[in-house]
Amino acid sequence: MNTQALFHLSESPYASLVSETYFCLRLRLGNEDRNLKVYAHFGGKYPFPSAREKIAMQLAYLDKDFAYFEAIAPIPDKRLAYVFEIVEDSHSYFYTERGLLDHYDFAYSYKDFFQFPYLHAVDIPSLPAWLDQAFFYQIFPDRFKLGDKGKDRSYINLAWGDKPTPKSFAGGDLAGIIERLPYLSNLGVNVLYLTPIFLSPSYHKYDIVDYLTIDPQLGDEATLKNLIEEAHALGIRIVLDAVFNHLSSESSFFQDAVKNGRKSPYWDWFFVQGDHIDLKHPNYEFFSVCPYMPKLNPDSPSCAEYLKSVALHYLELGIDGWRLDVADEVSHEFWRDFRKAIKSAYPEALILGEHWHNPHAFLKGDEFDGVMNYPVTYALERYLASKETDAAECASALNRIYANLRPTQIQANLNLLDSHDTFRFYTLCQENIDQLECALSALIFLPGCPGIYYGTEIPLPGNFDPDSRRCFPLDGEKPTPHSELLRILIGIHNKQISRLPQFACQAENRLLHLVRSNGEEGIELYINATDQPIELPDHGHLLAHRYEGKTLQPNGFLIRRLDK
Amino acid sequence: MNTQALFHLSESPYASLVSETYFCLRLRLGNEDRNLKVYAHFGGKYPFPSAREKIAMQLAYLDKDFAYFEAIAPIPDKRLAYVFEIVEDSHSYFYTERGLLDHYDFAYSYKDFFQFPYLHAVDIPSLPAWLDQAFFYQIFPDRFKLGDKGKDRSYINLAWGDKPTPKSFAGGDLAGIIERLPYLSNLGVNVLYLTPIFLSPSYHKYDIVDYLTIDPQLGDEATLKNLIEEAHALGIRIVLDAVFNHLSSESSFFQDAVKNGRKSPYWDWFFVQGDHIDLKHPNYEFFSVCPYMPKLNPDSPSCAEYLKSVALHYLELGIDGWRLDVADEVSHEFWRDFRKAIKSAYPEALILGEHWHNPHAFLKGDEFDGVMNYPVTYALERYLASKETDAAECASALNRIYANLRPTQIQANLNLLDSHDTFRFYTLCQENIDQLECALSALIFLPGCPGIYYGTEIPLPGNFDPDSRRCFPLDGEKPTPHSELLRILIGIHNKQISRLPQFACQAENRLLHLVRSNGEEGIELYINATDQPIELPDHGHLLAHRYEGKTLQPNGFLIRRLDK
Repeated sequence: MNTQALFHLSESPYASLVSETYFCLRLRLGNEDRNLKVYAHFGGKYPFPSAREKIAMQLAYLDKDFAYFEAIAPIPDKRLAYVFEIVEDSHSYFYTERGLLDHYDFAYSYKDFFQFPYLHAVDIPSLPAWLDQAFFYQIFPDRFKLGDKGKDRSYINLAWGDKPTPKSFAGGDLAGIIERLPYLSNLGVNVLYLTPIFLSPSYHKYDIVDYLTIDPQLGDEATLKNLIEEAHALGIRIVLDAVFNHLSSESSFFQDAVKNGRKSPYWDWFFVQGDHIDLKHPNYEFFSVCPYMPKLNPDSPSCAEYLKSVALHYLELGIDGWRLDVADEVSHEFWRDFRKAIKSAYPEALILGEHWHNPHAFLKGDEFDGVMNYPVTYALERYLASKETDAAECASALNRIYANLRPTQIQANLNLLDSHDTFRFYTLCQENIDQLECALSALIFLPGCPGIYYGTEIPLPGNFDPDSRRCFPLDGEKPTPHSELLRILIGIHNKQISRLPQFACQAENRLLHLVRSNGEEGIELYINATDQPIELPDHGHLLAHRYEGKTLQPNGFLIRRLDK
Repeated sequence: MNTQALFHLSESPYASLVSETYFCLRLRLGNEDRNLKVYAHFGGKYPFPSAREKIAMQLAYLDKDFAYFEAIAPIPDKRLAYVFEIVEDSHSYFYTERGLLDHYDFAYSYKDFFQFPYLHAVDIPSLPAWLDQAFFYQIFPDRFKLGDKGKDRSYINLAWGDKPTPKSFAGGDLAGIIERLPYLSNLGVNVLYLTPIFLSPSYHKYDIVDYLTIDPQLGDEATLKNLIEEAHALGIRIVLDAVFNHLSSESSFFQDAVKNGRKSPYWDWFFVQGDHIDLKHPNYEFFSVCPYMPKLNPDSPSCAEYLKSVALHYLELGIDGWRLDVADEVSHEFWRDFRKAIKSAYPEALILGEHWHNPHAFLKGDEFDGVMNYPVTYALERYLASKETDAAECASALNRIYANLRPTQIQANLNLLDSHDTFRFYTLCQENIDQLECALSALIFLPGCPGIYYGTEIPLPGNFDPDSRRCFPLDGEKPTPHSELLRILIGIHNKQISRLPQFACQAENRLLHLVRSNGEEGIELYINATDQPIELPDHGHLLAHRYEGKTLQPNGFLIRRLDK
């Protein structure tokens, strides 16, 4: 056995609750030990030395280095102790807090068992139930559709469809989104995530001047209310973008601090060195390299109260959740407090953090429901766009990502190919639509919520910001083979895959093979990202494909019902 | 390189702040890769792709499986990005969130660097400065000394020195501790940790009836104040035991809930199933298997307020900190709140949790300062008492413990050989005093605060509770060679080792070799736990030893100044 590959950590993704009554344990072994028998011994912490249960652990994920075993079992006691047994050559080894032991006397297990010290109410997962069938569609409002023909259009400086610059205003608005709701509903998406819509001098509106005013370029609170109501009538939810890490230097709060210095009631909302804010030689913290976006301090009690009141105001208006901008740079303390305020009033509201790196510290269950899952984005990019990796490497990367997330958080993550902050995936594929479609087919199979960026159904191309924020074509709603395929994929996800909680991912004969199942039935996906046709036996009921004559062509994929 | 042994995790003991201006990174490699060159590249998160620093990492800990490299560097930016470089056969590999990479283009590092997303004020370590030179002495008040001869002694049912039972009251009290302060001061200890002293029907007083009344068996608030003042005058600090996980079923709070059911203002202080408390068939949660100790719910706001007010009351009276009983079964939320309340008023107060297992989730810096370090207890027990392990295995166990604790938390842990909850170490050594003295010499070398259980200086024997709680002998203050040695060891710790922050631990020629140093000077310890004499060259200035003729006898040890 490879003892150096062994890993388990209490109070981590390797030991978590999946519901009020079930818990999940994981143990990592070396990939080469994937065929060993692995068991978990568990029980109440105090009776454990004399009374326990034993459960076989199943191989749940496999990457190039490691084999991750998992067991889900009913919680026998609020204070839980456990150790692992690994059988090799008929000998039982025990893995404990002290490491791997040749033999084990449970009478002394109190010295080195792993434990959940006590299961508190906050440890019980509480995710919006509607996430199970969610399919997201991200809209950049200025670029989606101009609906309100009567509004003051003097701010518009980009002819619809022209190439945007970092200063372009194209004129899209909430009324335009309302007009397109039937189209979006027909496409099958059921959650709209809008980038910020609050009063702001910029077209992107990540520098907010007033959180309680909808930017008049986009509409007003009545328009938002209409959007919410009409969307809800079609079974579509609305998620807004909460920019709580920073705001616009033009905001009245910051301006008050500029004017009144330490006497301002908003002074402690910002991080200032000295007694006065110096705008010429910024002596305050700000987002990234942008002094026009001073960083907020939500550890200031009045700032925290204000931000929570903003979030609650729009939930009261009817929105279904918040995406949290630059959420990783805001304190854990604020997010814990934020979650309590939101979930106590709106338990079904989504809290989705922007976090580009390992989000473990924010995904303990008391902060975010999930994050924008960029590690998945990159794994698909490398395999299907840049083709830096092969099927085996892609499967390894995906398995590693999921093996290190709590089971509940896997479900609440937003899986995406691109966003307003990246290149368009289609452009990374050098506009090869087959590669994009392979990626979309993978997207619907991955555990979590799939989502697409507006225009993926065209598909729109786009380099990095501002090019990734082009206008949605005026005739973009016209069905094409590509948009029809996307509609089919979304339907497969929402109607079938969302009922199949089990996931498996591996390389098979140079193909990427993804499976979703529930023990009774299943659906599988094969992707050929090589430059050679690969034979694939012809069986099962085809649901979507680029496949003929028992051969999967390069950049072809196949989705079919799984043979029993 | 052994890629399966590689490990790093952001926002964990592997990436932490050591002060307001320095941070510490760790990377784990396989033991067999301990001679590779390892570097950390780090810098501000936003400039990182174009501007970074590079620092060599040093081998800090080595166990049988792993080599732990560490670097401590000034914080260049509140938003920190970093990746690791490992050089093998002149080729540089890079370790990132994506795993080990053959080559690395920093231009795309934003996709997979590790990060501290933002350094918040709460991330800055805040430990009592006095911990650096602390040496603890744990007292079980009923068994230490009867000082108040005039008190009502009718409750006493154990003749001083007789074998205690689980119902014995011996009559020790706070006045007795005050009388012995000069003795304790002369021994060199400078922190007294007293097990609970509040009103309680039991001799051990872990079932508290009234937190705001000192049990009259032990004294009253005036006696406690005297104790604090006289101790402080001698440079001795007082730490009390906070039993906040549960209380006595006789407490007025529980009795009110028994009487008034859901109408009681204390109803939500407890976890009850149903509308009435059933004492005959307990329908409420309690500690371990003890219905007479109902579990408290500090997630009840009024309960939390009350417990914090208790803690603040005794700090106001002058105590120097709290040891937290069964702290791991109380919620993180309460402890975070507790720490804020305590540290904002008493920044130098110690918060020391009882936690027998991996305490990582409580040692992020926002809950406890440190814990009772039982994993160290067990490592010394196995090596020096039961002799299950040899010097190499003991060194491996110690290195593994420290490598997985944040540097700051290492310093705040209480290292102990035994307590009221264990066998006496002396008894585990089958009363071989040489073995006990080897363990005491190791104890003063380990990073953290050493502490002894009252009577270790005699030494008192004792099996598990109640035998481990024998009376301190009436003539126990009389100096003996053993107590003199202990006095010398405590002096070496407090005056010399406490100034030597660097620690190294390894096996050398079947001896355990511990070193403390500061780059300029150092002290080393050798222990021979084998049953054979082992030769040890004669050099350096001997500080304490069982050593002669260039030979370390079985169960011998040697402490000396380190040759340059």
